[in-house]
Formats: sequence, C-alpha cells, structure tokens
Amino acid sequence: MPHIALEQGVPGIVSAFQFRPETARPMRELAEILLRGPNTLSSAEREAIAAVVSNGNECRFCQLSHSAAAAEHRGGREADYQWIEQVKANPDAADVSPKLKTLLRIALKVREGGKKVTAEDVAAARAQGATDAEIHDTVLIAAAFSMYNRYVDGLATFQPDSIEAYKPMGKRMAHEGYARPAGEQQPVARR
Amino acid sequence: MPHIALEQGVPGIVSAFQFRPETARPMRELAEILLRGPNTLSSAEREAIAAVVSNGNECRFCQLSHSAAAAEHRGGREADYQWIEQVKANPDAADVSPKLKTLLRIALKVREGGKKVTAEDVAAARAQGATDAEIHDTVLIAAAFSMYNRYVDGLATFQPDSIEAYKPMGKRMAHEGYARPAGEQQPVARR
Repeated sequence: MPHIALEQGVPGIVSAFQFRPETARPMRELAEILLRGPNTLSSAEREAIAAVVSNGNECRFCQLSHSAAAAEHRGGREADYQWIEQVKANPDAADVSPKLKTLLRIALKVREGGKKVTAEDVAAARAQGATDAEIHDTVLIAAAFSMYNRYVDGLATFQPDSIEAYKPMGKRMAHEGYARPAGEQQPVARR
Repeated sequence: MPHIALEQGVPGIVSAFQFRPETARPMRELAEILLRGPNTLSSAEREAIAAVVSNGNECRFCQLSHSAAAAEHRGGREADYQWIEQVKANPDAADVSPKLKTLLRIALKVREGGKKVTAEDVAAARAQGATDAEIHDTVLIAAAFSMYNRYVDGLATFQPDSIEAYKPMGKRMAHEGYARPAGEQQPVARR
C-alpha cells in the first residue's frame, strides 16, 4: 500500500504526478528533453541507460516501463524486448555499440554515487567517440533516474507485477512522450 | 578538473546548467517549487532536508550552498549557520521540531534507496502531525538531491573549498531563488 493517499490502481510515478502536479511538470519536462529531445544518442540508447540504472536500483516500475520504451523505439518486436533484457543483464556483453558500453559503465557509476566516475571512465568513452554532450547527458540521465526511482519507491507506489502491463506504457512513452496527460491538471488527492 | 568542458571557475551545478540550458530550466523550476514554493514546511526546513541529504552524499557544493540557504532563511546570523551544522551532524539531537526530525529520518532513508522507507517511518511522521503533502515533499526533496548531488559530482564540477564562498550563494538562493540567471540563456560550451 502506498505511504500516502495516492489514487488506487494508478501505477508508479503516474500516481505521484497526479498527487502533486506542480512538481510533475518539470519532472516530465526533464524526462522529455533527456529521453526524446534532439540528441546524437538515439532514444533507444537513452532509454536503455534509464532502464539499466533503474534495474540497478531495483525499481520495478521504472525498470520495466523504460525497458518497454527502449524496445518500442527499436520497433517493439519480441527481439527488441529480448535486446533490452540482455542490455540490463550484462551491458558489456550486449549487442550495443562500443561507445554505448562505455557510457553505460559511467551511468552505473553515477547510480552508485557521482564521485565514482573517474577520469579513466570518461577517457574510455571519449576513445570510443563519445562527445562532451553525450557524456553530460549520460551522467544526467543516470542522476535523474536516481531521483525518479527513489520517488517511485520512496512513496511505495503501486507497481504492476505483469510485464505485459508495461508494454502499452512503453509504447506511449516512446511515441507520445512524457508530456502531461489531461487528467493530471488537477490534484486527485486532497492535500 | 571537470570531466567535460565546463566554464572555468564557475562553481558546481551552475557550470553544468550553463553547459546545457535546456535541462537546466526544469531542474531549476523543480528546486524553486520544492524549496521556495507555497508549503506548510518553511523554506529553512526544506533547505535543511536538502542540506542533510547532500551531506550524506558528501557533495560539498550542494551541502554547503544549501546549508547557507537554510541559514539565510532564518536570518543569516552566526547562530543560524551553527544551527544547520548541528542539524547535519545529528538531526535527532538538533534544535528542530519533533515533526522535522521524523521527516529528516525519512529523507535519509530515501537517500539510501526508496525501498528503505518503512510504514513505521511514515507512521512516526504522521504521529508528529506530518501531512501527506509534507511526507510527499520530503521524499521528493531527498530524491531530487540524490539527482543534483550526482550531477554535480558525476561531472567533477569545480567546488570552492572555503565555506565563505557559499554564503553569498546561499543568500541568493534563499532570497532570489532558483530562476535562471540571464547569463545562462546561451550554452557556454560548444556542443
């Protein structure tokens, strides 16, 4: 049961966003820019960074919804869903570019703590062609999911068990994005 | 030295915000709402939550700047600076309300991970009069600083040593807020 009076049956961060639309707005905007805005990293790559960090933090809702979004950005076939599972299970052995492997290593360091990132980690990414902007966005995506994950779990939000529940979510996140739905304009819970 | 080409001598998160104004905007807005927006928790109390979490994460820039902001919200006297040092050193023994003590305990749990927050932690806060909105904002402030801290340290931003450097910052944060300064409208670094 959620720690505070969130709308019953509304999953994960959506219920928290409904509770506090004022803070939902910048949090949604940040996700939209980081995961779907103009970038030299593809949205599938950026969603993979989000999924890997959320998996490390064991946040079921974020992990599965962003895995679905990553798969949907690649076409949403069974093979795409298998791909993101491999990336989460072992980024170093997964079918991703050498550059993305170095960025995923940086993201996993940021998940543990910002100071864990070393000059060597960054040099390794640069050696694979990563730009400053890509390194910046990797650090910020990992930092932002260190927030989203804690928000979702710190309120003990409702998180569906079935992986199937996350596919339509991932489709919406990939193709419609993170803008605020009409229903979120008024707080649902009495504050 | 910063991991990417940030403007020399510009401290902490300000240099990262200059590098990427697109993401700076929602990050600044979130801080403004959480720390200075209308709330039944005072801004000094909310800045104290931010300072305690940043102290736990050993992020010097965030820790000292938000400590200064907390002290400035109380008047900026030497005693106010001593107060926030006591709150960081030992929240349970500090001169804060019993309610804030329970909220600081929740914030420190969120810092470790969202799942660390228990129903008992929340019941203890409620027994001291904490509302759902206050519990929500405590969780989100702690989650947000889990992001800001990682962003500042994950890029290895420049962080002044002297505590004196943070007093004018804290004054501005407390009294002018977190809105974007004019200089941040254009990216400084070539992306």
